[in-house]
Amino acid sequence: MQTNPLRDSFDRRLHKIAGPSGLIMFGVTGDLSRKKLLPAIYDLANRGLLPPAFSLVGFARRDWTGQDFEQIVHDAVRSHARTEWSEDVWNQLSKGIRFVSGRHDDPEAFARLRQTVDELDRERGTAGNHAFYLSIPPRDFPLVVNQLEQAGLTQGLPGQFRRVVIEKPFGSDLETAKELNAVVQRVFPEDSVFRIDHYLGKETVQNILALRFANQMFEPIWNSKYIDHVQITMAEDIGIGGRAGYYDGIGAARDVIQNHLLQLLALTAMEQPASFDAADLRAEKEKVLAAVELPNDLSQHTARGQYSGGWQGGAEVLGFLSEEGISPVSVTETFAAMRLDVANERWNGTPFYLRAGKRLGRRVTEIAVVFKRAPQQLFAENQTTLLGENALVIRVQPDEGVTMRFGSKVPGPAMQVRDVTMDFGYGHAFTEDSPEAYERLILDVLLGEPPLFPRQREVELSWEILDPIVKFWEQHGKPEQYAPGSWGPLSAHAMLSIDGRAWRRP
Amino acid sequence: MQTNPLRDSFDRRLHKIAGPSGLIMFGVTGDLSRKKLLPAIYDLANRGLLPPAFSLVGFARRDWTGQDFEQIVHDAVRSHARTEWSEDVWNQLSKGIRFVSGRHDDPEAFARLRQTVDELDRERGTAGNHAFYLSIPPRDFPLVVNQLEQAGLTQGLPGQFRRVVIEKPFGSDLETAKELNAVVQRVFPEDSVFRIDHYLGKETVQNILALRFANQMFEPIWNSKYIDHVQITMAEDIGIGGRAGYYDGIGAARDVIQNHLLQLLALTAMEQPASFDAADLRAEKEKVLAAVELPNDLSQHTARGQYSGGWQGGAEVLGFLSEEGISPVSVTETFAAMRLDVANERWNGTPFYLRAGKRLGRRVTEIAVVFKRAPQQLFAENQTTLLGENALVIRVQPDEGVTMRFGSKVPGPAMQVRDVTMDFGYGHAFTEDSPEAYERLILDVLLGEPPLFPRQREVELSWEILDPIVKFWEQHGKPEQYAPGSWGPLSAHAMLSIDGRAWRRP
Repeated sequence: MQTNPLRDSFDRRLHKIAGPSGLIMFGVTGDLSRKKLLPAIYDLANRGLLPPAFSLVGFARRDWTGQDFEQIVHDAVRSHARTEWSEDVWNQLSKGIRFVSGRHDDPEAFARLRQTVDELDRERGTAGNHAFYLSIPPRDFPLVVNQLEQAGLTQGLPGQFRRVVIEKPFGSDLETAKELNAVVQRVFPEDSVFRIDHYLGKETVQNILALRFANQMFEPIWNSKYIDHVQITMAEDIGIGGRAGYYDGIGAARDVIQNHLLQLLALTAMEQPASFDAADLRAEKEKVLAAVELPNDLSQHTARGQYSGGWQGGAEVLGFLSEEGISPVSVTETFAAMRLDVANERWNGTPFYLRAGKRLGRRVTEIAVVFKRAPQQLFAENQTTLLGENALVIRVQPDEGVTMRFGSKVPGPAMQVRDVTMDFGYGHAFTEDSPEAYERLILDVLLGEPPLFPRQREVELSWEILDPIVKFWEQHGKPEQYAPGSWGPLSAHAMLSIDGRAWRRP
Repeated sequence: MQTNPLRDSFDRRLHKIAGPSGLIMFGVTGDLSRKKLLPAIYDLANRGLLPPAFSLVGFARRDWTGQDFEQIVHDAVRSHARTEWSEDVWNQLSKGIRFVSGRHDDPEAFARLRQTVDELDRERGTAGNHAFYLSIPPRDFPLVVNQLEQAGLTQGLPGQFRRVVIEKPFGSDLETAKELNAVVQRVFPEDSVFRIDHYLGKETVQNILALRFANQMFEPIWNSKYIDHVQITMAEDIGIGGRAGYYDGIGAARDVIQNHLLQLLALTAMEQPASFDAADLRAEKEKVLAAVELPNDLSQHTARGQYSGGWQGGAEVLGFLSEEGISPVSVTETFAAMRLDVANERWNGTPFYLRAGKRLGRRVTEIAVVFKRAPQQLFAENQTTLLGENALVIRVQPDEGVTMRFGSKVPGPAMQVRDVTMDFGYGHAFTEDSPEAYERLILDVLLGEPPLFPRQREVELSWEILDPIVKFWEQHGKPEQYAPGSWGPLSAHAMLSIDGRAWRRP
């Protein structure tokens, strides 16, 4: 791997390569594994960021041989890896691939897993360092965690690590989040638990920190004196697809606002941390989340909806209530929006509006920081009719970058000012390819670097924000229908217009 | 002209169309007239901004007939106008074109001019409103102004205007500027004198006002707390061309810093005016100019140079001292640079560096506002090696627009921050064509709107800044030679490096 051509350009900004270690994946037959996790592992290896001793163990009920699994990893990598194919890298990586077939409730399967892990430690040199990636439904957590413990897999020798990686949902409300956490923490101490919110692994999300704190131009105006409000949008243009079983009863607020959007809010609103170390960074995020205040009138300042049937992008699409696997009387929302205030000195009077939904006009995630209008006493009213508010938009996906909107003079003899935009695109600005969020996060798990993983306290604070809203919704009628391809229900627009504002059309 | 297709898009942002009036041009045989002034008049007519009664009288020594002159205007328009050719517009315009042949010292010629003007008032309906555009050497001003007065041309009836337009140079130092002004103001009151600094007619220069005062994002950081320094550059890639007679003994500082660059400084640094009315705007510019302080050590904080012979753009070029018409021992500078400080609350500690020169690397005029570095305690030193200072660059010409430079995270697992830029281009952002600076200025003369014309006090303040520097140079040796295509003499770079700064490479 010393000759890997990708290493040179990467080395410059490389902090660390993972030490001897292995990843043990549960739920390896799922979509996430195939499309994201397995390709990310290969990409990390291809970039020279995994140790030669790296091993990958799959655990699943399927009756696969080790070779079957190797083929599956191979196919997943060939289909979805972001870096080029290298036979050498693959050969090195594939030597460390193992598979253990078994059910979550079968102690013998976990004994075989233990054997496999021990063998890898001896033969491959993984040195007793293992991370268990639980890409499985939370209801299986107690069982798997217990089995791991029983098989003696959760405790390494001194100097060895045993970590656990869990994916959202981290519960479905405060209570279940605490229960889930109790199960995990009975066996794994908090600093061995890596909760993955893959949004935090995205380059543009990490760039919020660089933008805010490496520049002189933004931080001085990053407060309620200059910022009118902030809009955080996560829009999908697809429906629930095959996720009916998970989605019904969960809905947009719990699915993405509790984790992704509140994390984006925290990074946008937090004070400057003492450092980027995990403890300092999380402490600042927690301070902001703890300062979040709900609107007094939840009926006016929240909104929810369900997409109706209709046409989108030239195709006829089903309404949510007609989707397979969804109860026709479901009250689960596919669109959620809410106003949140941050009760501190910096944000007093500057609301944060969050919205997330499916079957909206376009797939886009963005943070729009909308500034107050400048005092316009110098300009006659008809000189600024085409001038909106200044805005700084951090485009998280898909077209990652930053847009600034500001007023400029229209050419001509009159002083007419109109909005113009400036744009910075990650794809254009950097020749370096952006690693997939999961690459970064898996590497951080192996390195034991937790800054990008939310702590349990963050999870609980997020549920504390969300629970009263979800509860209010449960007690007050049904979600409003909205047309596919629109920007959500009327109530979402009303929610901003009573504040004298409007959603951006992203 | 009602059917002019350009009118519709223009009307929206149009404040006024000039009323009945005429322009009487002296020096009509010069380059400026042919390339800029005459085409600008046609363009104004084509945009529907001139009255049907508009008239244009040329005055020159040539033995032309009215038809000859009409042909000359026609050819100038066809070669240099920016708007499309319209036979209708030309026919309307050309009916008001007259020519008076005569010498500046011939009273009879001015009597004929008086006759012509009276005729136009009667037949064409110019209503006694006339502006005299003196595109002639300043040494002829006393004579022409006297003749105009003697011929009874400088006083209209009540309600009629008589204005005079003069081009730089407004003297060559404070004393000559006062003398020149005394000549003009003996006959024309200050509010009838329009001093043209064509930079002030440029869209990007006027956009400084829109950028600063119509936006919320810039003004809060527009002070010495956040801005490290400002660089104002006017670089030409050509030599003195045919201007030897004028240029020798004048030099870069008096040629362009006294007017263009100090005006750019004033607009960049001034406080918000009470309004954009002439009196308010000029008052703020004068306040800034009056607050300018010279560096204590002029030898360290100013620089001057002469371009040497060599190669530029694939062609061999002469050094300044070898140019035709230049004394081989001339000490006239073709490059000038200086540090100026503005002694007020807003700019205390933030120097303004000005530079102007010929035969530099590229033709460009820009204002670069360079911010202080953000406190970097969050970033390790090796994370920000590729991060410079934030900068906002107002590109005045030729590629008019705004560039912002700021730091963004480099894609990859490490927190590495690197400069990126965002760009806004006038040409791309607006479908409206940018009127030539002279269009705007001529229209303002006819409208009697003086905000874009410097007052005599501004001219004098500028000379008060420049005189001590030029005097110091006269007493201290010769300009340093610099290579054609370079960015000026070594002393210009030393001047910034002793302050721990460096010039931008535009």
